[in-house]
Amino acid sequence: MRNFEFYNPTRIVFGTETVAKLADLVPGNARVLILYGGASAKTNGTLDEVKAALGERVVLEFAGIEPNPSFETMMQAVELVRREKLDFLLAVGGGSVIDGTKFVAAAVEFEGDAWEIMQKRGRNVKRALPFGSVLTLPATGSEMNSGGVIMRKSTHEKFSFMSRFVFPQFSILDPTKTYTLPKTQIANGIADAFVHVIEQYLTFPVQALPQDRFAEGLLQSLIEIAPQAISMEQDYDTRANLMWVATLALNGLIGAGVPQDWASHMIGHEITALYGIDHARTLAIVLPSLLNVQREHKRAKLLQYAERVWHISEGTEEQRIDQAILRTREFFEGLGIQTRLSGYQLGEDAIDAILLQLEAHGMTTLGEQQNITLEVSRVILQGAL
Amino acid sequence: MRNFEFYNPTRIVFGTETVAKLADLVPGNARVLILYGGASAKTNGTLDEVKAALGERVVLEFAGIEPNPSFETMMQAVELVRREKLDFLLAVGGGSVIDGTKFVAAAVEFEGDAWEIMQKRGRNVKRALPFGSVLTLPATGSEMNSGGVIMRKSTHEKFSFMSRFVFPQFSILDPTKTYTLPKTQIANGIADAFVHVIEQYLTFPVQALPQDRFAEGLLQSLIEIAPQAISMEQDYDTRANLMWVATLALNGLIGAGVPQDWASHMIGHEITALYGIDHARTLAIVLPSLLNVQREHKRAKLLQYAERVWHISEGTEEQRIDQAILRTREFFEGLGIQTRLSGYQLGEDAIDAILLQLEAHGMTTLGEQQNITLEVSRVILQGAL
Repeated sequence: MRNFEFYNPTRIVFGTETVAKLADLVPGNARVLILYGGASAKTNGTLDEVKAALGERVVLEFAGIEPNPSFETMMQAVELVRREKLDFLLAVGGGSVIDGTKFVAAAVEFEGDAWEIMQKRGRNVKRALPFGSVLTLPATGSEMNSGGVIMRKSTHEKFSFMSRFVFPQFSILDPTKTYTLPKTQIANGIADAFVHVIEQYLTFPVQALPQDRFAEGLLQSLIEIAPQAISMEQDYDTRANLMWVATLALNGLIGAGVPQDWASHMIGHEITALYGIDHARTLAIVLPSLLNVQREHKRAKLLQYAERVWHISEGTEEQRIDQAILRTREFFEGLGIQTRLSGYQLGEDAIDAILLQLEAHGMTTLGEQQNITLEVSRVILQGAL
Repeated sequence: MRNFEFYNPTRIVFGTETVAKLADLVPGNARVLILYGGASAKTNGTLDEVKAALGERVVLEFAGIEPNPSFETMMQAVELVRREKLDFLLAVGGGSVIDGTKFVAAAVEFEGDAWEIMQKRGRNVKRALPFGSVLTLPATGSEMNSGGVIMRKSTHEKFSFMSRFVFPQFSILDPTKTYTLPKTQIANGIADAFVHVIEQYLTFPVQALPQDRFAEGLLQSLIEIAPQAISMEQDYDTRANLMWVATLALNGLIGAGVPQDWASHMIGHEITALYGIDHARTLAIVLPSLLNVQREHKRAKLLQYAERVWHISEGTEEQRIDQAILRTREFFEGLGIQTRLSGYQLGEDAIDAILLQLEAHGMTTLGEQQNITLEVSRVILQGAL
């Protein structure tokens, strides 16, 4: 096991009827900005519930945060917070809204051009406004970590940032809030959480037993609940498990003390930035091909994954690895997610464009061994055609 | 899954050469009391390392905390802290030292008779001194939770308390610090962590998938490392896994959103208070018999435990349950821990005495369904003769 630090002070308030607890969780004298995405927060009643719980506090709203939150949009929120001297942010939505809120929390207190936060990946953040979240879409884990991803529309750049100052103070996770989500968002959430686990698990062994077992447990849980989750029945336990698994998939726990990959995410971010394809879908495109291309470097963990997660014990090592990658691809396809670039009308031209973006952003050595060069990325993308 | 809150702000600093980080973790102007147990902290050099890392800070020491920390001893530390106006506590040791330090942190700030903290189980704690820990003995999980157990020698009472004010600010976990531990302490640590997991897992199903998988993963990890751990070789990865598993076994995570038992602990505490038997050994006495007596109430989870943890799939349900309980008992015995009262020269007389203590402390309905009455406790103890 590698040396690590683990620190996660976010309070999770999980279950039914928990939105009302905002009354105690948000300081009584706070001047609050509620940030959210589209009309769904309004139409499904969550926004009204939130405002009722906040009672007599000064409350303003900022709507219109995009599925991939943009620097341009979030800077409007920064202006609003400064102008109205607001001092507490409350994200109501999924990972995009929470990521955007994290950026606003840091940017409000940042001196200079706030895009530098993204350019320095958050290392230059020295403080941030306090904030909490009401999660309505299980997927990214942003509700219990200190990272975010922001896209700059004008330059087609999509970067992640991290800072210990942008842990949510609390996150309210009410699984019933997912009942009104469309099937594509549930499917995306499952795929996103699945790949988050894989990125921290499917590397090389370092004798980190509980981390491996936890990662495998999260993958097994996702596989177990996926059919019922996308059946769109309002099944509480299924949605509760999806919500808690997605949070645990990226709260720092399973990644503590182990190598991490993240190449699928880096390549995927460029696909989203260029072509607007949903984040989770870009991961489903890249990951199966990446596992195939990196099979030598990931051999021991691929065999462990095959055996413990998919219960594949027959055949040669190559056959078991092939089978595990196939099952991974079929898992995404079973969610209704295409796993090839051609499924999104993209071909060889796109590969050239994606590689140019990777190069422009310095993504020339990716993966847990930093051996995914641009040439390897090309082979991965060609395998995903 | 049940509604829950999860909050754990303790910073874990894990790995080799981490004691030196005290220099940054403890406030520069702190007046520090180092609390520890016996001579081992001195002879193995940890205390010197700690003091070197604390540099020029004012540092006093308090030695002599017992394996079951007593109210009487810890009140001497409270006096010292008050007299010398110390403002930061640093526990150097295992669960007993950390539990004792938690009590001191709360008692220093408590108005009135500090034993009331234990009588009210910590509900009356309103603030506490800040403190951290340097863990040298993996077992109790106290390094990353907000609970502690204190014994009053004069009355043979052993109570637990919890308060959100007594989370350690940080805990340093250096697995090499366990190299000098005697085999009995390693064995006790494994057994203690194992039963902590069981108490939060082996109840009845509530469709909490990741909690179950995490619990099973911790049990599997303990089973996997146990032989090497008690072989007393200085194997870093074995000790690292033991240390991190024992912490994860009782940091609130696997117990969030699920029913919990704790009857083995409550009965075990009385055995320790009366006869001074090591805490972990009392658990190994009570648990196998308790599982047998409670088999109807725990049937579904016992079968899941048999299958997933011990890979028992042959035979009738009763046979599989018998087999799982037998494997549990054999696991403890394999650590060199006796699992019957007779192994500690205790018989029927002891059962009467233990039951009187349970009654005196209001422990008349125990377990996840509160159906372990004194009569059931008697049957459990008779099964443990």
